[in-house]
Amino acid sequence: MAAVSIKAVLAGTYPVGSEVTVQGWVRTRRDSKAGLSFVNLSDGSCFDPIQIVAPTSLANYDSDVLRLSAGCGVIARGSVVESQGKGQSFEIQASSIEVTGFVDDPETYPIQPKPHSMEFLREVAHLRPRTNIFGAITRVRHCLAQAVHRFFHENGYYWINTPIITTSDAEGAGQMFRVSTLDLANLPRTDKGAVDHSKDFFGKDAFLTVSGQLNVEAYCLALSKVYTFGPTFRAENSQTSRHLAEFWMIEPEIAFADLAADADLAEALLKYVFRAVLNERADDMAFFAERVEKTAISRLENFVNEPFARIDYSEAVKILQNSGKKFEFPVEWGMDLQTEHERFLVEQHVGRPAVVMNYPEQIKAFYMRLNDDGKTVAAMDILAPGIGEIVGGSQREERLDLLDARMAKMNIDPVHYQWYRDLRRYGTVPHAGFGLGFERLVVYTCGLANIRDAIPYPRVPGHAEF
Amino acid sequence: MAAVSIKAVLAGTYPVGSEVTVQGWVRTRRDSKAGLSFVNLSDGSCFDPIQIVAPTSLANYDSDVLRLSAGCGVIARGSVVESQGKGQSFEIQASSIEVTGFVDDPETYPIQPKPHSMEFLREVAHLRPRTNIFGAITRVRHCLAQAVHRFFHENGYYWINTPIITTSDAEGAGQMFRVSTLDLANLPRTDKGAVDHSKDFFGKDAFLTVSGQLNVEAYCLALSKVYTFGPTFRAENSQTSRHLAEFWMIEPEIAFADLAADADLAEALLKYVFRAVLNERADDMAFFAERVEKTAISRLENFVNEPFARIDYSEAVKILQNSGKKFEFPVEWGMDLQTEHERFLVEQHVGRPAVVMNYPEQIKAFYMRLNDDGKTVAAMDILAPGIGEIVGGSQREERLDLLDARMAKMNIDPVHYQWYRDLRRYGTVPHAGFGLGFERLVVYTCGLANIRDAIPYPRVPGHAEF
Repeated sequence: MAAVSIKAVLAGTYPVGSEVTVQGWVRTRRDSKAGLSFVNLSDGSCFDPIQIVAPTSLANYDSDVLRLSAGCGVIARGSVVESQGKGQSFEIQASSIEVTGFVDDPETYPIQPKPHSMEFLREVAHLRPRTNIFGAITRVRHCLAQAVHRFFHENGYYWINTPIITTSDAEGAGQMFRVSTLDLANLPRTDKGAVDHSKDFFGKDAFLTVSGQLNVEAYCLALSKVYTFGPTFRAENSQTSRHLAEFWMIEPEIAFADLAADADLAEALLKYVFRAVLNERADDMAFFAERVEKTAISRLENFVNEPFARIDYSEAVKILQNSGKKFEFPVEWGMDLQTEHERFLVEQHVGRPAVVMNYPEQIKAFYMRLNDDGKTVAAMDILAPGIGEIVGGSQREERLDLLDARMAKMNIDPVHYQWYRDLRRYGTVPHAGFGLGFERLVVYTCGLANIRDAIPYPRVPGHAEF
Repeated sequence: MAAVSIKAVLAGTYPVGSEVTVQGWVRTRRDSKAGLSFVNLSDGSCFDPIQIVAPTSLANYDSDVLRLSAGCGVIARGSVVESQGKGQSFEIQASSIEVTGFVDDPETYPIQPKPHSMEFLREVAHLRPRTNIFGAITRVRHCLAQAVHRFFHENGYYWINTPIITTSDAEGAGQMFRVSTLDLANLPRTDKGAVDHSKDFFGKDAFLTVSGQLNVEAYCLALSKVYTFGPTFRAENSQTSRHLAEFWMIEPEIAFADLAADADLAEALLKYVFRAVLNERADDMAFFAERVEKTAISRLENFVNEPFARIDYSEAVKILQNSGKKFEFPVEWGMDLQTEHERFLVEQHVGRPAVVMNYPEQIKAFYMRLNDDGKTVAAMDILAPGIGEIVGGSQREERLDLLDARMAKMNIDPVHYQWYRDLRRYGTVPHAGFGLGFERLVVYTCGLANIRDAIPYPRVPGHAEF
């Protein structure tokens, strides 16, 4: 008999009396005085485990059922019955229980049926998917990723995977990981004794990408609507709860678009993916609201129901200056907004997500489009209550002369960007895009405190076991 | 007036007489003696460009329209009319044409409206998406990727992104890329003068992953049905048409599954994604069949319509030995099959895709499950006419004692695999999975000759501009 998912049984797919086979891992076992054991079995298909009622009449009751502990692998057959327990819909009256694997030394098995600290679970990253919380994070993460792809597909965008290994990005190389096949113990040298990078795999220095944006622009300027969804890397030696060395980014790029269209797309995307989570992962979200972050559900509901505010950066500065609030970093025009400012704006002032637009030129990247005022660029950040910045984007400078001027002002050598300049020489069009850090989206959705819990295997400086 | 996609106009979404705005890049311009210009405009939304009819009465006819050349960025407004040209459904009678960007020096613009060699186009990877063929590849690639995600989602699988940077895979390190933040010009040294890897970012040697399989097994053994779809890397210094340094892999893993279930899943996946391409990308596939590979469509149709054959490896060896055909590599039991053997089997012998199962233990990886005969393992390859191997998979060795014995026999130090052994110590269950190289899937679908044309930006040893 083909096995079925626990999700399907709990959802009532099989009428009472049906014979089914389910498979999974034991969460708990409880033996009743009436001569029965209750085994909670999880297969990860949904948040809840199913209760298997195992009678003493099973041939292997003493030898196997009474040895079951958290983590054991089990195949159970039996008939679907209505559950007597509260909150449970259906359970299974077992006619057979087969154990595929017991747990070696159950006393020391790391995933006991009790709360564990997130710090401890990071040390057993290969076993933490068996906990309630990491099962829920994994399903929500999947739901978000699927919704991202579906949103773009339905709206005519093409997925582009931009290079992971890059040789072109000279900017900020200090925070990049080097990729090399050189033998460190025996480095090739030039005549002058310097390391000879021409002997490396790509014939030059190569690094892990920090963003696919520049590369995806080339595809945008041929296919009009494109997006990346792939890994990016930052070698920041940081142990904060907000940084990862390896993380996934979503970067759409739209041709014939300005900053307003860019903000509209970001708003539509965020609302779409949060709606998907509310519709498809109510079980996991109820757990987050109960155990992790009280407002986990309500803040997503507010997010999808209200139009985002639009605020000009210069207006935001005035609001902050006139707020009467004392900030750690005093506010003045020309500065980058800090998290304290961003959270004040959306949490105290507008009370909902806000797009802040048109930032001072000097604090923004060279590829952002200069506004007619000559001192701001068409950049935007989307700020959300409870987290601050969640999206950063801009209209790109499509005018070659202004791009060149901006690069010169910022001491960026155009020799690394000839191909990027070509995109402006050959049929330039206005275009815009944004970046959304995928793990940041997961952190916000689940109400997590630490971004390392939003990725299946956290990469930590000085500690990466996998 | 909001712009619409050329795909929608050609599909007849807007009735004749409607006013529409379209945007894109000029493919060709032709001036008629009757005092009209015909401008073919592409926006990448579908294979075909749309014809814009530009009358001399346009205010900027002389100044702009007559200067239009391949690659120019254009916004055209006008009314939808039925096309007089054959093969075209609708065209646009322009009331205005706005040029957002001309092409600098049209004579030297690399993407002329004429055939280019694939070799040449690899040198202008940032502009090649503007060609017919790379537009088509990009859309088909997108269609395949979406279908992969959709197939797994509909079947209850969760997407897991396994680590890109890994410190655990000791096997085959010679073909891996090192990831490091050490300063090559000034390497830290131990007391004994060796390179001090403990000073590196992760406190030890780190590399780019060659496969997510081992890592995804941990998630499989908690969530039952999972898959990866992410980049993997091989530092093979190869210029062949079959290898990439950077490529994407799809690796599903199923709990409580054996090799037969694994093969069934692979067959269902391949048929699903090819059906999606046939349904959704008929325009691009018609181009491939006409210009690239005559059988591009018919072989996909055969693929989805026939059940795959199942052949035991030992039986395959006998078939090859009795074939009367002279192979470059003579066939004997125990050898790995070469492409010539694989193609003979599926092209000459069975005439459709085939799953070859149960390979000799000594030619397969340590994690594959030993069969009861003691000399073969539960491994499979799926072979397709016209390409050879397209999927490789296995049931995993879930029995710790046999896994340990296999590792010892192959001189693999278990110290690197304690976490992987844990998965067998704690509630082991039978499980299986496979790997499908995504670019190989694109190559096969589009009928391409070189795998470097299946990825948006090819990474070539000694030549990586991006």
